[in-house]
Amino acid sequence: MSIILYELAGRDDFRFSPFAWRSKMALHHKGLDFESRSVKFSDRGPIEQSGQERMPVLLDGDTWVPDSWAIAEYLDATWPDRAPLFDNDAARAHARFINSWADIVLNAGVFGLIVHDILDHVDPDDVDFFRTTREARIGKPLTDTLVGREERVEKFRTSLQPLRLTLKAQKYLGGATVSYADYIIFGSLQWARCSSPFQVLAKDDAIATWFSTMLELFDGLGRKAPGYEV
Amino acid sequence: MSIILYELAGRDDFRFSPFAWRSKMALHHKGLDFESRSVKFSDRGPIEQSGQERMPVLLDGDTWVPDSWAIAEYLDATWPDRAPLFDNDAARAHARFINSWADIVLNAGVFGLIVHDILDHVDPDDVDFFRTTREARIGKPLTDTLVGREERVEKFRTSLQPLRLTLKAQKYLGGATVSYADYIIFGSLQWARCSSPFQVLAKDDAIATWFSTMLELFDGLGRKAPGYEV
Repeated sequence: MSIILYELAGRDDFRFSPFAWRSKMALHHKGLDFESRSVKFSDRGPIEQSGQERMPVLLDGDTWVPDSWAIAEYLDATWPDRAPLFDNDAARAHARFINSWADIVLNAGVFGLIVHDILDHVDPDDVDFFRTTREARIGKPLTDTLVGREERVEKFRTSLQPLRLTLKAQKYLGGATVSYADYIIFGSLQWARCSSPFQVLAKDDAIATWFSTMLELFDGLGRKAPGYEV
Repeated sequence: MSIILYELAGRDDFRFSPFAWRSKMALHHKGLDFESRSVKFSDRGPIEQSGQERMPVLLDGDTWVPDSWAIAEYLDATWPDRAPLFDNDAARAHARFINSWADIVLNAGVFGLIVHDILDHVDPDDVDFFRTTREARIGKPLTDTLVGREERVEKFRTSLQPLRLTLKAQKYLGGATVSYADYIIFGSLQWARCSSPFQVLAKDDAIATWFSTMLELFDGLGRKAPGYEV
């Protein structure tokens, strides 16, 4: 039985999706072997059979599992004897709040700071698609997002205060040990690290300290991925 | 062994503290008998022996426990055989994020919408103290916070989107069953309900539906407290 993770990828095998990072960390956490296959925005042929437009999509044997949250639940349900991503029902229920916060607050904040720089890394075939869809989303040219970043990043960092207070009080979102909630947040910051030289976190931020720890997990999986120094 | 909860109270025994509501719900969840004693801003004599300035403070026999989060941890540690507030370490660690989010995002949002109306409910001896300290905090007269509330409430409701998505996917923050994370959020919305006729939530909001359920817990403890219709 083979596991394949289909994820967005750019030029030079650059892997930028925050959601795919959640799933990759989750697969490593479960100790599962898997093959990661790259898909371009402009050619979603590889995932056509899944019936999905969006990635990541997991293919386990002949079972397609779309959506990073559903993938995490699937992994725990299918391999209950391996290290849990969610310690129990209450932890999973709480992690859903963290997932929602990351999707809405954290990802939107990161997006506004780094979206222009992603252009340098998407596949040449995807540049027009990426620029057109993202400019439609923000209603202005991507170059405009470079203006005032130094001021906007302060507001972004302030928006992370709930995360900061949590990580000042405990080593991981999961407490003493790492859990899926950590991978949720990690994905967003890894997206920034892989895409842009712009520093979304201050060096002395407790979140940056935690992120450095996260980069070393699984033999430095995150640190080895092509990206910028943080 | 008696348990006493000291909490801020206003005129007509009005109980407004979001943090005290967290602790009261937690005590009921544990099925513990306790006496609630009201304290005024202007006379903190009753909690002098605790060494604390802030409330709520719990007194269990001769043990003082300050701070709502610490009180929740204390209750679970001291009565481990009663219904847990935190299902396990991971759930508690995740709940800390929700606690931080509520303290920073939710409470600040509610405060900006209802702070003027709290004036109508604080003890007559506390009106000047409350007005002076709160005006210092916001840097303008409290009456200014009544201006543009209808527009600001839309921004507030948008800020609750992570909570809304979570409660659309599951009955409680705790999943299928209520847990301390629910009492955290409940405290903030009960603060609004007890203090102000202004509707911080739209009637058709999934958060409002959840809040109605929360008001009925423990024989309608929340609903019976003096407050406004929601």
